[in-house]
Amino acid sequence: MNTHTAKPAAPRDLEAARDALARLLGDRFSTGSSVLDQHGRDESWHRPQRPDGVCFPETTEEISEICKICFAHEVPIVAFGAGSSVEGALIPTSGGIVVSTERMQQLLNVDTANFDCTVQPGMRRIALNEALRDSGLFFPVDPGADASIGGMTATRASGTNAMRYGTMADAVRGLVVVLADGRILRTGTRARKSAAGYDLTHLFVGSEGTLGFVTEITLRLFPLPEETDTAISSFDTLDDAVNAAVAIQQCGLPAARLELLDDVMIDAVNAFSGTDLPLRPHLFIEFHGSRPANDHAIELVGEIVKDMGGSDFEWARTQEDRNRLWKARHDCAHACKNYRRPKRLLTCDVCVPLSALAESIARARADARENGFDAPILGHVGDGNYHMVLLVDPDDADEVARAQGVADRLVDHAIEVGGTSTGEHGVGIGKRKHMVHEHGEVAVDLMRDIKGLLDPRNLMNPGKVLP
Amino acid sequence: MNTHTAKPAAPRDLEAARDALARLLGDRFSTGSSVLDQHGRDESWHRPQRPDGVCFPETTEEISEICKICFAHEVPIVAFGAGSSVEGALIPTSGGIVVSTERMQQLLNVDTANFDCTVQPGMRRIALNEALRDSGLFFPVDPGADASIGGMTATRASGTNAMRYGTMADAVRGLVVVLADGRILRTGTRARKSAAGYDLTHLFVGSEGTLGFVTEITLRLFPLPEETDTAISSFDTLDDAVNAAVAIQQCGLPAARLELLDDVMIDAVNAFSGTDLPLRPHLFIEFHGSRPANDHAIELVGEIVKDMGGSDFEWARTQEDRNRLWKARHDCAHACKNYRRPKRLLTCDVCVPLSALAESIARARADARENGFDAPILGHVGDGNYHMVLLVDPDDADEVARAQGVADRLVDHAIEVGGTSTGEHGVGIGKRKHMVHEHGEVAVDLMRDIKGLLDPRNLMNPGKVLP
Repeated sequence: MNTHTAKPAAPRDLEAARDALARLLGDRFSTGSSVLDQHGRDESWHRPQRPDGVCFPETTEEISEICKICFAHEVPIVAFGAGSSVEGALIPTSGGIVVSTERMQQLLNVDTANFDCTVQPGMRRIALNEALRDSGLFFPVDPGADASIGGMTATRASGTNAMRYGTMADAVRGLVVVLADGRILRTGTRARKSAAGYDLTHLFVGSEGTLGFVTEITLRLFPLPEETDTAISSFDTLDDAVNAAVAIQQCGLPAARLELLDDVMIDAVNAFSGTDLPLRPHLFIEFHGSRPANDHAIELVGEIVKDMGGSDFEWARTQEDRNRLWKARHDCAHACKNYRRPKRLLTCDVCVPLSALAESIARARADARENGFDAPILGHVGDGNYHMVLLVDPDDADEVARAQGVADRLVDHAIEVGGTSTGEHGVGIGKRKHMVHEHGEVAVDLMRDIKGLLDPRNLMNPGKVLP
Repeated sequence: MNTHTAKPAAPRDLEAARDALARLLGDRFSTGSSVLDQHGRDESWHRPQRPDGVCFPETTEEISEICKICFAHEVPIVAFGAGSSVEGALIPTSGGIVVSTERMQQLLNVDTANFDCTVQPGMRRIALNEALRDSGLFFPVDPGADASIGGMTATRASGTNAMRYGTMADAVRGLVVVLADGRILRTGTRARKSAAGYDLTHLFVGSEGTLGFVTEITLRLFPLPEETDTAISSFDTLDDAVNAAVAIQQCGLPAARLELLDDVMIDAVNAFSGTDLPLRPHLFIEFHGSRPANDHAIELVGEIVKDMGGSDFEWARTQEDRNRLWKARHDCAHACKNYRRPKRLLTCDVCVPLSALAESIARARADARENGFDAPILGHVGDGNYHMVLLVDPDDADEVARAQGVADRLVDHAIEVGGTSTGEHGVGIGKRKHMVHEHGEVAVDLMRDIKGLLDPRNLMNPGKVLP
């Protein structure tokens, strides 16, 4: 087995690096105090840390030059998109240079006949869909934040409609990646499928900036749905709601979204939005298809819901009615932030086999309660991925420890039942400790070897992903 | 850049390896003449070569022991499933030991609530679907051959319904892989999605046995479609047929199969099957969905076909009528083998962006004709992947050279328009020469580095995939 221990060829020479970057980028290299602060923090509860400088490149070639400079002077590089990471992935915990993609937000190409487009990494997902508006196509991956496509590539992001349209793992057709030593790598193909050699694209998707710097992404697009129908229903128990979700999928109905809100989340939403939903688990279901397909699906869903003892079944077709029904779901993030007035959210993100979902949620709720937390639960139950939101005051060490204990036990159990510590948010800083449990020693050793191969000096976002 | 040149630690010691394998496996290690012959050939037109022995292991642990023995004695290892490769991937061109998965054909687990199953690599895809018959679920990847799941994993196989259900890249959730030195690696998760670290699963899927030996595969399953409807239509030109296929997809209709047969293929099918289809390009379309969804889709398809000047539109719902309509498509492989009585088929497998498909096919047909070939064309036009079948006598050196020239020019052009040399068959022996053109030097160097990392002695299926 090859090991590539991070032995620096020489000590870090920050001054030389900063001088070279200033010569390369002019005023697009900054060491201003507020710029450093803005680029040393994300949306997680990990402690911010200032970088030693921030670059604002505009091209792949500039990023290549930045990497060569940092490589030569042993300076870490951390990519920054929208700053919406929730796992600390973009915090420069070893200092170094943050490279922002703020000046790389262009849509480079759209090919409607081939259902694909190519974007720069800083482009936000909402801006992408706005740019695609007249094409008849859309980009479906919709994490909670208006994240950058580069950041979404880095974390293998997904969202509410992954069950139908897939995650970034399915969406990314090809990449341009700048490697640690400045070489420019192209992966993938614009063909819809290929059997030609090793899959380098998937190696970089989800690597959280630790294997290379993504500078272009080619994405698969989908036709806009002909019709969108929404249904909601409440249930006596979480088990019933989960079983209804599984039954809906077993029927092969054209569901695009299957979202679960537990009674605590409903309470938070009622408090925030002024709604008056009963304090019971709710399923929010959305269908994408033709008029006849959706009518048929809604009818079947009504029967499934009745079989599972569901109540308060409502169905909406028009944009206005759908917005009213989905309001509760849309307001979840804000509702959590306002619920019991926490200072920070510790958001769990396990994904488990569907057969273990109800059990995982029940254990999580019980453990949270025993430790004094009213933790709302929001689930992408079509995928077995759910978020339990622990509301913590970071200055209360006891509360933090209790929350971390709940989160860790949740992950341990998820792994034991064949699931994963993180369905869509990434490993970042805080989940490195679960990697060996989840993957085993051999897999983690191989990941370390791959990291050592691609980044022998450990400069690409050090301290993330691998324990 | 790290380079891992294949420097053997010692010369190959075949005798010691064979002795150790005989002690390990008893009569499940064979050097019998016909056994060696059977395991030195595939369905391609590459020259067969006998291995130096064939193993028939039954467990992952046995395969680990086999790898340790071969690693210690510098003996190559080549995996063998159903033997249905069409690219020479399983021919032991450097001699060594073939490891057959013939005694590893079990279905290990099915979880209907989680829509997955786990199989041993020797299990054939048709046997898998037979075993799943009462579960309500099916495994959708359907290459032409009744291939082994292990072989399909090795080549990132796909088939006629990849446009709806994906390829092996989408189907494989996790693997057990024995590495060159005998370590046992587990990849992936039974969760539907994960953002936890590097994607090792996709590294091995499509690696054609050159990075490790797959001993277990966990697969995603789908609910059986409620209804299946089939339509066919003929067109004046290939362009019209391709444009109809693109239009069908842009409408978001629930198409599961979109297959194109050109007039030469129709001629071959008529000759073989006794059908009387007009000698024009034909589209075969299949929908999977509810009754209302399919009725709506067929109606819309009828309009699209009319817009594109299509004729002879027929539609079938019952199993019997669908079989009659699809017979022409089903008989294509046999029809090719009987057309003009060739000795071997050289099957091209490019996949191009849909926007370039009509042009690619037109050029291919013209070049084939100019070089004296009546080459039938069969296309998975939903994906942009098509097969032009060159019918050659391998003893006619001039004919072989002309065929190879046509095939190479077809690949060159496909790559130039953003496509790939192989959509689903793999690189094997014959397409290594295209790898640098398709991927670029940096990517091929990285693939070599990864190969060197995982297989420093170059024993895992040497001489395949990488130039």
